[in-house]
Amino acid sequence: MPVFKAETLKRISEEIFKAYGAPAEEAKLVSEFLVRANLCGHDSHGVIRVIQYVKAIEDGILKPGVKIEVVRETSSSALIKGNWGFGQVIAKRAMELAIEKARKSSVSVVCAFDIYHIGRLADYTMLAAEKNMIGIAMVNSTATVAPYGGRERLISTAPVSYAFPTGKENLFVLDIATSVCAEGKVRVALHKGVKLPEGCIIDKEGNPSTNPADLYDGGAILPLGGDLVGYKGFGLGLVVEVMAGILSNAGCAYEANKKGNGVFFEVINIEDFMSVDEFKNRIDALIRRIKSSKLRPGFKEILLPGEPELKTKMKRMKGGIYIPERTWNEMMKIADKKGIDVAGLLSENEDPLLNESPD
Amino acid sequence: MPVFKAETLKRISEEIFKAYGAPAEEAKLVSEFLVRANLCGHDSHGVIRVIQYVKAIEDGILKPGVKIEVVRETSSSALIKGNWGFGQVIAKRAMELAIEKARKSSVSVVCAFDIYHIGRLADYTMLAAEKNMIGIAMVNSTATVAPYGGRERLISTAPVSYAFPTGKENLFVLDIATSVCAEGKVRVALHKGVKLPEGCIIDKEGNPSTNPADLYDGGAILPLGGDLVGYKGFGLGLVVEVMAGILSNAGCAYEANKKGNGVFFEVINIEDFMSVDEFKNRIDALIRRIKSSKLRPGFKEILLPGEPELKTKMKRMKGGIYIPERTWNEMMKIADKKGIDVAGLLSENEDPLLNESPD
Repeated sequence: MPVFKAETLKRISEEIFKAYGAPAEEAKLVSEFLVRANLCGHDSHGVIRVIQYVKAIEDGILKPGVKIEVVRETSSSALIKGNWGFGQVIAKRAMELAIEKARKSSVSVVCAFDIYHIGRLADYTMLAAEKNMIGIAMVNSTATVAPYGGRERLISTAPVSYAFPTGKENLFVLDIATSVCAEGKVRVALHKGVKLPEGCIIDKEGNPSTNPADLYDGGAILPLGGDLVGYKGFGLGLVVEVMAGILSNAGCAYEANKKGNGVFFEVINIEDFMSVDEFKNRIDALIRRIKSSKLRPGFKEILLPGEPELKTKMKRMKGGIYIPERTWNEMMKIADKKGIDVAGLLSENEDPLLNESPD
Repeated sequence: MPVFKAETLKRISEEIFKAYGAPAEEAKLVSEFLVRANLCGHDSHGVIRVIQYVKAIEDGILKPGVKIEVVRETSSSALIKGNWGFGQVIAKRAMELAIEKARKSSVSVVCAFDIYHIGRLADYTMLAAEKNMIGIAMVNSTATVAPYGGRERLISTAPVSYAFPTGKENLFVLDIATSVCAEGKVRVALHKGVKLPEGCIIDKEGNPSTNPADLYDGGAILPLGGDLVGYKGFGLGLVVEVMAGILSNAGCAYEANKKGNGVFFEVINIEDFMSVDEFKNRIDALIRRIKSSKLRPGFKEILLPGEPELKTKMKRMKGGIYIPERTWNEMMKIADKKGIDVAGLLSENEDPLLNESPD
């Protein structure tokens, strides 16, 4: 069970992307974002994606180094054609453009299409929050979720993210799929050989299932709210399909030729509504009151959006990031193919074969 | 079980509001919106509210006829101080202002504070969709929902609404609480003497309950996602508290002096991203594909957001609106107090004592 320092994983990932044709600054940015996902505990969006991205480069789907085009623009909106560059590179620029526009115009929307996987939404909405603005993001991808009452996969897990600046409290960053769970969690259960909790997926006949294999045998993930009120998560998922799929020109999950992410970013400039200090004082007070709530039996603490990730980050900054052997071996195969000396990139005392998971 | 035509209820409600000091056009608008909620099947937001609104006028909380103030404004944003007028009157003007601003600036945000209950959000987001724009609304109110893991009521049911224009298909209008259910549904179960489904509420000790009375004895509604993934609904509820409670200057649900609604409205001008025709064609195609989905066992049809309301409306336009006797009697008491001749406002063949519920 190899365990690595974040810096080591970044170096290795960077070298791999460069060897496969990515400009240095793109390789650096993408690697930084992937490792940040590992640090936060979202390994499904971490360096495991290096394997997928390299394959996409080899297949000619992902095109490092391409120029992006702003195909439509007003003082407070833009539509970006990504030309199939790295999602992270394009999405970061899209959010920066949205921040710039919101600073002048109070609120802005920037959509993007023809772009590859952008990773975790929180990485982008946080950029706005760090500039004392509200960051909003919605993304669609391929179809894995059934409509409420249906048994076909027709919408994506359709994540949304909202980030708010805070004063003394931790940054507020919500980043959730509008389905009961993300596809990554089903895959993890499958690989671990464990059952899923009830209410996550249905099999190909539309019957409830706890067997993760059923998802990959024609089943589907259920929308947030499950059997009781799944029309709510279904409705939110459709909103994401429209905002990030249609308005962005990227296409909806149900479409046969859908690939990559459709991106909807929005930024609101707090200063046009109230002083940033007042906003921060008020959100701090809200957070403190919520965290001081009396607890339900079985709960030890109220965690605000972003806190579980922060806790994992503290732990992994110290204890390192565990990479499953299968992932590590596949990454090494890719590195070997381009003659990258991975051993030379390891930190002192880092032995991929000896360490144990810190989690 | 009195059953009335929508027009009759509007007339009665209008006369009551006028008798209690509302200007004619305000009485008309508020009555129109309340009866529209009845028509759509959301009786908790219908003419039953006449009783509450009249009491609020008598208590000096709701002030018909006041002027609203725009306290901050840019080309694409505004902050409105409602001075405690009718929520419907102020919210409609806030959305109209947002539409006007989005037409010139691609996207706009209008927030409002010091305003009374605004009713259903769909009524406002639909105004934008009818103008070929995207309408978004978030509203907070008083605390009824517990944080994920907590057992105190600290956030509101925090509804959100999204409306999109369509071509040949029905308007897409999502209007949902970010809690498992709205408070009105618990109250209905209480009045009917039936149990709630599991997963809706907890009692004052934080234990799961199906007894609606427990909510009114110190319990709380659970956030969307329930025990399994309630952190999702909780996160969305907090987003609404921040956008509609803090950014709007209205205050958060947990605050002791919180009253009325905090309002966040947003409008996006589709034309700055793609032609409205193309947008409509694409959303029509999405809707058709979703509706054609193979069904799960036990389901007869996939209903899109807004469709259940439309079905009820068709039924009630024809069959009338059923008003519970208790509601009717309380309304009559209020009317009598001001000497309103309700009998004279009834349509031909309308006898409040003879009809049966059409539902």
